[in-house]
Amino acid sequence: MHMIKTLVINTNGQGLYECTQEIKSIVKNAGIDEGLCTVFVQHTSASLVIQENADPSAQADLENWLNRLVRENDSLYTHTAEGPDDMPSHIKAALTSPCLSIPVVHHQLALGTWQGIYLWEHRRNGHNRRVVIHMGD
Amino acid sequence: MHMIKTLVINTNGQGLYECTQEIKSIVKNAGIDEGLCTVFVQHTSASLVIQENADPSAQADLENWLNRLVRENDSLYTHTAEGPDDMPSHIKAALTSPCLSIPVVHHQLALGTWQGIYLWEHRRNGHNRRVVIHMGD
Amino acid sequence: MHMIKTLVINTNGQGLYECTQEIKSIVKNAGIDEGLCTVFVQHTSASLVIQENADPSAQADLENWLNRLVRENDSLYTHTAEGPDDMPSHIKAALTSPCLSIPVVHHQLALGTWQGIYLWEHRRNGHNRRVVIHMGD
Repeated sequence: MHMIKTLVINTNGQGLYECTQEIKSIVKNAGIDEGLCTVFVQHTSASLVIQENADPSAQADLENWLNRLVRENDSLYTHTAEGPDDMPSHIKAALTSPCLSIPVVHHQLALGTWQGIYLWEHRRNGHNRRVVIHMGD
Repeated sequence: MHMIKTLVINTNGQGLYECTQEIKSIVKNAGIDEGLCTVFVQHTSASLVIQENADPSAQADLENWLNRLVRENDSLYTHTAEGPDDMPSHIKAALTSPCLSIPVVHHQLALGTWQGIYLWEHRRNGHNRRVVIHMGD
Repeated sequence: MHMIKTLVINTNGQGLYECTQEIKSIVKNAGIDEGLCTVFVQHTSASLVIQENADPSAQADLENWLNRLVRENDSLYTHTAEGPDDMPSHIKAALTSPCLSIPVVHHQLALGTWQGIYLWEHRRNGHNRRVVIHMGD
C-alpha cells in the first residue's frame, strides 16, 4: 500500500516555512496505520529541515548563522549569472537536504514533541516550491 | 511486510554514540530478507551520522571541527534561554541529519566495511534520545 | 514489490560525478510504477548530493566553497595517518549525506527539472565507489 501526493508551498523570499500540518493531514488521509513518509523537494535552491517548532528565534538564528557562513558576493563564485543569491542557495541546499523520511505510527508522523518540518527557501524572491510526498507501509 | 521499533540511547553529554550493533540486531530480528531500514531521531539537538568506525580519532576530529565551526556564545544568537549549548545544537542538527535510510540485503544492513551508525548528541548534558526505526521490503 | 541493485562508480579524484541517467535506467527497468527509490553510498569519504544539472560552474563553485571550509592540514586534526585529504573527506561526507530518497512517479524519478544526482568523491585519488539502490512501492 502506498500513496504519492504533491504539495505546493508558495514562498515570499528567504526563510523557513513550516509545513508540518499539511504533511500530517496528508498522512492522516492516506489510511496508512504504520509505515514511512518521505518528503522530497524538487528544487536545488530550497531544502527541507526539521527544527525546533516552539520558539521562532531558533529558526531566525539558524537562518542568520547560515547566511553568515554562506555569503553572497563571495569572490570564489563563478556561477553568478542568476543573481548574488543563487550560488549561496545551491550551497545551502547541499549542506541541508532535499529529502526527509519519517516513520508513521498509528496514522501519525512519529515526530518528537519539538520537531517541525520546514521548507527552507534560500532565494530572495518568492517561488512556488513543489514537495513530493511518498507514503508506504 | 514492515516493522517499527524504538531504540532509546542514553547519552552522557556531547559526542558520537555508536548504535550500529543495536540496529543490526533489530534488522536481523525483523525477518526481512531484502528491504529498506530507516532510522529517525525524534529530537532537534541530536542527529544521526554515518562515519568511519575503525579509528576513534576520526570521530573526535569531526566533533572538534564542528564545535569550532558552530561556536557557543556567538553574538549572533538570540535563542539563548536554554543555555549556551542549545542554539549550536540546533544548527549542528540542521547541518547533519535526523534520518538515514539504508538498504537491507540478505537480512543485513548494506553498510560498507568502514561505516558505523552514530547518534550525535549535541548537548552538554546527557539525555535519553529516542530513535525510531522503520523496516520495510 | 521491491528491487535492489548495486552501481559501481569509478572516480578519478575529487569532484562531483553525475549518475542521474544510471539511476533513471535502473528505476525504469525495475517495473515499479509508483514508489520510492533510495540511493545509499557505502563509503565514509564520498557522499551523495542533488545539485543543479544545467551549468557545471555551480558544481565547481560548490566544490571550491566546501574545500575552503574544510581545509587539509588543519592543525586540529589528529586522524592524519591516511593522508591530508582523509579527515577532510570524512567531515565533508558528514556535512552532506550518504543517502537520498526520491519518489518514483509513472516509472520515473520525480526529480525537478534542474536536479541531477551526483556522487561526490572527496578523496584526491580515484576509487571504485559502491552505491546501493533500493526501489519499493
